[in-house]
Amino acid sequence: MTEAFSFTLKARDGAARAGVIATPRGEVRTPAFMPVGTGATVKAMFPEDVKATGADIILANTYHLMLRPGAERIARLGGLHKFMHWDGPILTDSGGYQVMSLAKLRRIAEDGVTFQSHIDGATVALSPERAIEVQCLLGADIQMVLDECTPFPATRDEAAASLDLSKRWAERSKAAFDGCAAPGQALFGIVQGSIYPDLRERSAAALIDIGFDGYAVGGLAVGEGQQEMFDMVAVSTASLPEDRPRYLMGVGTPHDMLGAIRRGIDMFDCVMPTRSGRHCQAFTWGGRLNLRNARYAEDPTPLDPESACPAAHYERAYLHHLVKSGETLGAMLLSYANVQFYQELMARARDAIAAGRFTAFADDVARRYTASE
Amino acid sequence: MTEAFSFTLKARDGAARAGVIATPRGEVRTPAFMPVGTGATVKAMFPEDVKATGADIILANTYHLMLRPGAERIARLGGLHKFMHWDGPILTDSGGYQVMSLAKLRRIAEDGVTFQSHIDGATVALSPERAIEVQCLLGADIQMVLDECTPFPATRDEAAASLDLSKRWAERSKAAFDGCAAPGQALFGIVQGSIYPDLRERSAAALIDIGFDGYAVGGLAVGEGQQEMFDMVAVSTASLPEDRPRYLMGVGTPHDMLGAIRRGIDMFDCVMPTRSGRHCQAFTWGGRLNLRNARYAEDPTPLDPESACPAAHYERAYLHHLVKSGETLGAMLLSYANVQFYQELMARARDAIAAGRFTAFADDVARRYTASE
Repeated sequence: MTEAFSFTLKARDGAARAGVIATPRGEVRTPAFMPVGTGATVKAMFPEDVKATGADIILANTYHLMLRPGAERIARLGGLHKFMHWDGPILTDSGGYQVMSLAKLRRIAEDGVTFQSHIDGATVALSPERAIEVQCLLGADIQMVLDECTPFPATRDEAAASLDLSKRWAERSKAAFDGCAAPGQALFGIVQGSIYPDLRERSAAALIDIGFDGYAVGGLAVGEGQQEMFDMVAVSTASLPEDRPRYLMGVGTPHDMLGAIRRGIDMFDCVMPTRSGRHCQAFTWGGRLNLRNARYAEDPTPLDPESACPAAHYERAYLHHLVKSGETLGAMLLSYANVQFYQELMARARDAIAAGRFTAFADDVARRYTASE
Repeated sequence: MTEAFSFTLKARDGAARAGVIATPRGEVRTPAFMPVGTGATVKAMFPEDVKATGADIILANTYHLMLRPGAERIARLGGLHKFMHWDGPILTDSGGYQVMSLAKLRRIAEDGVTFQSHIDGATVALSPERAIEVQCLLGADIQMVLDECTPFPATRDEAAASLDLSKRWAERSKAAFDGCAAPGQALFGIVQGSIYPDLRERSAAALIDIGFDGYAVGGLAVGEGQQEMFDMVAVSTASLPEDRPRYLMGVGTPHDMLGAIRRGIDMFDCVMPTRSGRHCQAFTWGGRLNLRNARYAEDPTPLDPESACPAAHYERAYLHHLVKSGETLGAMLLSYANVQFYQELMARARDAIAAGRFTAFADDVARRYTASE
């Protein structure tokens, strides 16, 4: 296994790309979907089943882990990989987004952000340096700079000021990372700029100046609408270097992801497959199903006859019974099947790109999802 | 595989017995612990993991399944085994105990019991004939007669009247079973009699007169205290034929089960391993642990280094984090590890009986459990 972080493009189809990210903990085939392991667990899934779905990499949340059980504690216990029984690559976010969406009484200043923990109300400070320190303590393979996820909507002036603050934080994050990262660990910058194309370009240029191992597109899927999201993705990727992976944060539905791949995105994370799995929703190759629906009460069809996932071979009637009864096994099976669907979607996208038929593939999936519930 | 139900004694050690129950769906090594799959799922466990713990047979609850999703529906879907992905033997109770403990507005008469469903308040009737019909619809390999689980405490007269009603219901259950059971399916009678030794003997004699494939000891672990329970078990088993399996219903802790095995019991069921698993409690070869306890926050020891269960190899610090965070994975891992501990306990009990050292084995386990939390 390589000791260095690298990204190799294997195929292109229009702006869509297929490639491989190499890390000391293994390879990540792109386009890649990262299941979200917020609190050091991909919810309601055994780690070996996460692996069995085909996931090469998972995401964990710095915000949650620094509050509970604490980054220093995880470091003392041997790092996040050992702690959560996941030996593949882990990407951690910087905590910035969760501070804005989950914590109370936030105060943003040049130095960083202070907030009240949503768990016990304690006052916590998060600076660019501390965000990187936490990620180094966790032992994350891919780390993210602390940025301000620009609120939506934002005026042009607000978005520009936010972007400039994020740029200064990115510089400080890079300096902190250079001081604590282990060989082969990577740091990604995050393009902001709200829905203003020139600000997206300005943000990308500033990050490229600093120089990162990969680039994320942030501040999207926050209410701007799908077409505007796609437009901002296209502007952002067009401003980014070809030879670095591009990661669209917090996205999304199958249709969102395929639209973003078509516009040059390589990596995704989203709680949707697991959260939906806990709320009776299934993603299948036949479209989306709500297992609470009475139509499934005596339906002997497997959840998804087209999926290779063991969980997708359970009958819909049984899953309907489990979710109606509030049984944990329902959430376990649907989470497993959904994460595997997301992985199969990425695998088929990679194959389609390699075969030069990505557009036809994406259109076919979109049709299935438009026709479903 | 055999088409007939049979029980073969393989070894004895004092009153303790080791044997094999043969059913058309496979063998059950005794002493056996049956994980409880109340609503067609052993809570928070994949069926293949239940199997992997070493469980030969599981229990499902007639009361719950007749209310949701309904026995006729399960029959239309191909029976309970197919429905819940369990191809080994299944024992179903008769629903009588749950009617008394869960349902409201019960009315007991000669014909049977009527009650209000705890799910939707519907009025439901359960007679000996209907209890068997439901179990035949489910396709249960071992079925139980409908009885009245005598409330505790009961006067001698109350216990005798209850016992006589249960005897008449046992006769009707047997007749109904003979009319609907498939080849190789078995019916067990249930010894009642509260804490009165002569009533226990009278109940056993009456059931033997009717003739059953096996005999359960019921109405215990309802508040009478462990020594009284053991005494009633001893009286009951002494009154039962040697060549039929004996099942102590709803029991219990490791100490309860070992004490009952010592007094001639062959089979157990209890929600304790799974319910405890959902409430942060672990059964291990070192004793019982409460994973919420702060002492485990940085404990890198595996949950149970002596267990062969994959779930028992997770570190206590991680399990502590999961249960403190309310993560489903905590319940999944502890349920799995606890059910496996119960199976390993039975396996070691069988080995100890075969080797003629059951008393020493039981005393050793009792010491471990006395010393733990």
